[in-house]
Amino acid sequence: MFTSILAAFDGSDGAVNALRTAAGLAALCDAELTVLTLYRHHSVLEGSMYTLHAGDPDNIDEIMRNHAKEVAEHGAAIAREAGCEKIRAFVKGGPTARTIVSFSEEHGNDLIVVGSRGLGSLEGVLLGSVSHKVTSLAKAPVLVV
Amino acid sequence: MFTSILAAFDGSDGAVNALRTAAGLAALCDAELTVLTLYRHHSVLEGSMYTLHAGDPDNIDEIMRNHAKEVAEHGAAIAREAGCEKIRAFVKGGPTARTIVSFSEEHGNDLIVVGSRGLGSLEGVLLGSVSHKVTSLAKAPVLVV
Repeated sequence: MFTSILAAFDGSDGAVNALRTAAGLAALCDAELTVLTLYRHHSVLEGSMYTLHAGDPDNIDEIMRNHAKEVAEHGAAIAREAGCEKIRAFVKGGPTARTIVSFSEEHGNDLIVVGSRGLGSLEGVLLGSVSHKVTSLAKAPVLVV
Repeated sequence: MFTSILAAFDGSDGAVNALRTAAGLAALCDAELTVLTLYRHHSVLEGSMYTLHAGDPDNIDEIMRNHAKEVAEHGAAIAREAGCEKIRAFVKGGPTARTIVSFSEEHGNDLIVVGSRGLGSLEGVLLGSVSHKVTSLAKAPVLVV
């Protein structure tokens, strides 16, 4: 049915729920599951604001990337518990919906799984709009959980 | 995984594609598949306009309903060809997205499958907006194909 499933995962309750569904489906189809966690690149302005507080603006992207890695690895553990065996975890910086879709095209995923809520909060956009953007942009089927 | 799948079907190419995916998934999960075709109730104005041409405004709803039945039965045949065994076909009048979601809640479907395009054209709305509305309104997971 599906051979390569991409689950976007930001650690929110909604994303955990979506990831469990993705993992169950991957186990059922004997598909590979990729857990993808997004992080935002910091703008120069944001970097300069952080300078006042954090001391080391060069490391902000690195800090966010490392946090995203922990979230992705937590996602992989959840997927494993849900019965999925073939799991890979990735992190990627960029705008959430576009990055999910471009990643899925590069990796030939034949199903994208996203939470209906949760991901949007990363970018402060309206509830659910990331899943709407992904369903609009993706050529592959999208499961919104 | 899923036990009761609802596939919205309007006969368009996109809907045929979505229905085949729904049928494959239903076969894999040994789930029941419900094929649902929507038709619009005619307004009094539309009815009066048809009077000029069609002669029998009382029958317009009936004609649309019968056409929807044919579409739904065609959908059931496609699902059967795709390897699905437990299939039911329904027609329902009303606004597309809301009717899909309320039907799914009444029938306890645990997955809704819609095409990313096609359904919208029934109501002249923007491309994809029916799938967006369904993903926004539904509590159950929605697969947009």
